[in-house]
This record gives sequence, C-alpha cells and structure tokens, in this order.
Amino acid sequence: MAIVIIRQDDKIDVWKNALLKENSSLKVYSYLEEHPKEEITMACIWKHPKGTLANYPNLKCIASAGAGVDYIFEDETRPKNIPITRIVDPYLASDMSEHVLSVILAHLKNLNQYKLDQVANVWEPKEYMRIKDVTVGILGLGELGALCAADLANVGFSVQGWSRSKKHIDGVNTYNGEEQQQDFLKTTDVLVCLLPLTDATKGILNKKLLSQLPENAYLINVARGGHLIDEDLLELLDSGYLSGACLDVYHTEPLPKDHWFWNHHKIHMTPHYASVSDTSSVIPQIVENYKRLDTGEKLQHLVDTDKGY
Amino acid sequence: MAIVIIRQDDKIDVWKNALLKENSSLKVYSYLEEHPKEEITMACIWKHPKGTLANYPNLKCIASAGAGVDYIFEDETRPKNIPITRIVDPYLASDMSEHVLSVILAHLKNLNQYKLDQVANVWEPKEYMRIKDVTVGILGLGELGALCAADLANVGFSVQGWSRSKKHIDGVNTYNGEEQQQDFLKTTDVLVCLLPLTDATKGILNKKLLSQLPENAYLINVARGGHLIDEDLLELLDSGYLSGACLDVYHTEPLPKDHWFWNHHKIHMTPHYASVSDTSSVIPQIVENYKRLDTGEKLQHLVDTDKGY
Repeated sequence: MAIVIIRQDDKIDVWKNALLKENSSLKVYSYLEEHPKEEITMACIWKHPKGTLANYPNLKCIASAGAGVDYIFEDETRPKNIPITRIVDPYLASDMSEHVLSVILAHLKNLNQYKLDQVANVWEPKEYMRIKDVTVGILGLGELGALCAADLANVGFSVQGWSRSKKHIDGVNTYNGEEQQQDFLKTTDVLVCLLPLTDATKGILNKKLLSQLPENAYLINVARGGHLIDEDLLELLDSGYLSGACLDVYHTEPLPKDHWFWNHHKIHMTPHYASVSDTSSVIPQIVENYKRLDTGEKLQHLVDTDKGY
Repeated sequence: MAIVIIRQDDKIDVWKNALLKENSSLKVYSYLEEHPKEEITMACIWKHPKGTLANYPNLKCIASAGAGVDYIFEDETRPKNIPITRIVDPYLASDMSEHVLSVILAHLKNLNQYKLDQVANVWEPKEYMRIKDVTVGILGLGELGALCAADLANVGFSVQGWSRSKKHIDGVNTYNGEEQQQDFLKTTDVLVCLLPLTDATKGILNKKLLSQLPENAYLINVARGGHLIDEDLLELLDSGYLSGACLDVYHTEPLPKDHWFWNHHKIHMTPHYASVSDTSSVIPQIVENYKRLDTGEKLQHLVDTDKGY
C-alpha cells in the first residue's frame, strides 16, 4: 500500500514532506514521478486533473486535502465505489467566521473606500453603519455557517440563517426550506453564502434570489464561485440595487486577469484565502485514515456521496 | 442670555437649526453674523479660531460640541474661570469600539493589501493571523478605552490596557503608571492609542515608547494627531521594526496633500471619522446645560480644567 499525491499547485513536495515527517515509514509518491500504480491505495488530492484517479486499480480511498469535495464529483471518471474523505480542520470554521466578521465590518466602516481614497489623495469622511442596525443573513447553516452566525450574534449583529432542513442556533432566527426563503431574504442587509456546492445550489446566487434582498443589500460569497451567476450580480450592482459584494471564490481560480470583477468599484476581492487548511493540523487526519484503511476500522470524516458533501 | 456658535467648518447653520428645532425660544447666533456680544452666556464651539472666546464679557460656559476639549486649552486667550462642558455621545464609545475592531481585523486579514492587489490586478494569497494569537494593548482606559478593551476581549483577543491610575476591567489585564508601562508594551502586538491629549501625553507615541513594542507590532491611533511624532513612526516603519499603522487623526486635518502618510505602503488612513458626534444625540445635552446655567443647577459633563479632560 502507498499514497499518491495529486494536485496542480506547487505544494506536492510540501505535502509529501509533511506526510513523511508525520510517519517516515509511509510510501508517498507524487503523481508526476515514476511510481507503481498498483501499489497505490490512497489518493491524497486537491483539485486533481480529471481522469488521473482512474489510473489506480487498487485505490481504496480518495482523501481530499481540503474541506471541499465538489471538484471530486465533477470528475466522472473517478472510481465510484470507494469512500471519499475530507478534512475537518480545527480552525476551518473559526477562520471563516473571523474572515466574515472582518469583511462585514470593512463594509460597514467604508474601509475599502478609504484605502482607495488614500491612494487617490482624497480626504472624504463617509457615514458609517452601526452593528446594531444591521441584519446579517447566513445562507447555509452547516458547521461553518452555524459558527459564523453565533459569532456575529455575539458581536451584536441581528443574525438570521437559512438552511434546507430546520436548525436551531442560540440567538439566531432560523428559516428553512423553499417556502421560508423569501421571508429570510427580504430582511437581510448583508447576505453571506456558506452553502456547499451541489447540483441543488449551483447558481443559487442569481437575479431571482438576490432581487429579494432589500435595496442596498451587500453580498458576501465565501462558499464556491459556482454558487454565483456573475452576470446577474453585475446587473444588480450597475442598476444600483445592491450596494456591493465581497467575493473570496470564483468560477476559475486564480480569477482570469480580464474578468470584470477586478475593476468594478463595488466589488471587493480576496484571493480564496478566507480559510486555508494548513498541513500541520490536517496531515494527522490523512495518516490516521491511511492506518484505518489497513486495519479495516471505519474511516474518519467520510463524505456522504449521495448528498455530495 | 444667548448662545453663540463658533466653528470653522460649514456646520454653523446645521447646529443653529438643530438648537432652534430643540427649543424655538432660544436665542442663537453665528459668531460670523452681527450679534449682541454682552448677551452671550454660552459659547457652543468646535475648534474655534483662537481669540474669539475673549469677545464675550458675560460668558458663563464654554460648551464643546464634541467629546474632545484639547483645542480649548490651546487657546491662551480663553476666559479661564468659567466651566467647560463636553459632549458625552451615547454612541461615541461604541462607535469607536466598532471602528477599532474593524481596523484590527482588516490588519489581521490583510484586507487593505488585498484592496491594493485588486487595483493592481494581482492574485496573491497571504498568511493571516488569528484573533486568539493576538494581544491588543489599549493605551488609555477612559470611557472609550474601557469599552474597546471589553469588546475586544469578548471577541476573543487577549487584551491588556494601560492607564495613569489603576483600573479594573473584566477579562482585561490592566497596568498603570510609568513603572508598569514597559511590561505593558513589550507584550502588545497591536497598540491602540485612546488617551486624552494633554501636556503629559503630547508626543507620547514616540520612538522611545514604540521601540518597546515587540517587532512587527502594529499601531492604531484614534485619539489625537498630537500624540504621535510622525517622523519617529516613519523611522520605525522604514527600518522594518513596526509592521504598519492605521491612523484616524493627524496634526493638521484634513491631512495636507503632500504629507508622507498618503503614499506610505505601511500606513492606512481614515479621515478622522472613527466616531462622529451627530447633532440629534448631542443637541439635547447642550440645551439642558443652557437651561441649568439659568437655574443655577450643576452643569452636566463638566471638564476637569486641571486634568484637561
């Protein structure tokens, strides 16, 4: 048995070394080097080139090196009858929550505009909003959404959340199902998307949904680029209906240099950095599951392949 | 008895109308119009031209239209034996606290840099800091400093505070006096200045004090421009010792167009907007004290003229 690392960024060696540091007796290969394909039992992957997973006849587990797994389901050539695991990073939810709080406050206090004013040598005080006057709506109340909602409520925001099935979070008004979505949207000043990307949520941030927000609402997408219909957002920003958007995720990443997001004055971009799994906290999870593959114990952090997350 | 409004911005009419709306029987004059100087018993002022207060022989009270009063003490020609009052805005402290939280988070999460990256069409994820790993030190634990400290502790920061006299705030390590200042500084990652501007604190943010912070510390000045020795900050930024500074206040406001702050990549500017008194919440305080001048009742929000705040 052996592990193959498949990813297209420049971190293959980082991961290889981190795995070997955790347990020097592991056999770990890069998918780019010469390696015995029959020996591979676990693929530790992040946004792998489609088709590469089909090269391993004895693969027993696909281990996503991050929390997201949507990219795996997009590869139709993947082996379909083996378990998929994901990372549950101890800081994933709290990092996301801190990011969301920081970008909401930057919006309330006009910090992005002040940075641009500084560059332009312009002194122009602007009215700010107060936390107590703003209702934040969280779309998706999974692990990340639930913590975000609770943390924002703790700071003093009015917080409400929407999810497919009913949820309870102290201090947060929760809505669920299609029939309560409108009530949720019409009272949301700042909408935060933290849904998983599935067939049901792809393109959910479209003109129909976003138009149900009150005028001057602000959008924060920290989930996946695929949730957003970019052109619908453009229309609602340019008509003056929405006051702006802060985006961390994009259909293609890095975002192509000629995309209109870059130069739109109502768009604030961060480069998919809201919450980044660091190897020190996630490597032990990969190694533990690799051990369990051998002993036959139940794997940790299994993905529900029907739901897709 | 009558009120004169003295200020150099364009808000004289706003204040005059707001006072008359609160009580239409008041006699209110702009210092720029023809008016009976002997009748004036209260001067409602904000950064008045030096010397103008000496024109009123029967003045009984100087009412600052903001929380700060340092500019009054800088006018040596002011009548010295009459009370000075200041504004205690119900939102002054909470607005300041929200501003401080927002600029600290923008620093931790690199939001200013990402805004500049966006303008430059650059995709470059950067490491972020976590709230739990950052110690914020509040210099000055008056009304504003105390609330800031408590709010930051509530969000999860390690918070410590320094003041001249001993203070107690739940969840905050407090230091006091000259002899404990070094211990306070050497463990502070983000220093927030919220001191009043007095002879004792003028220029306190100098090379000697700032060098006692750990390397890579970050400075936030939301008190007064006079606290900071600009050139000392420049030296510590350019040597790489301090990681940056976020400034809301300046020696001259608006900041002169040719000041080096505008173009320094480690300086983040906001245009003295952190907390702005709005007339609706402060007018009733002015009118109440004006009434008390007549009845002889003790004035509200009196300034201690010995301490200067």
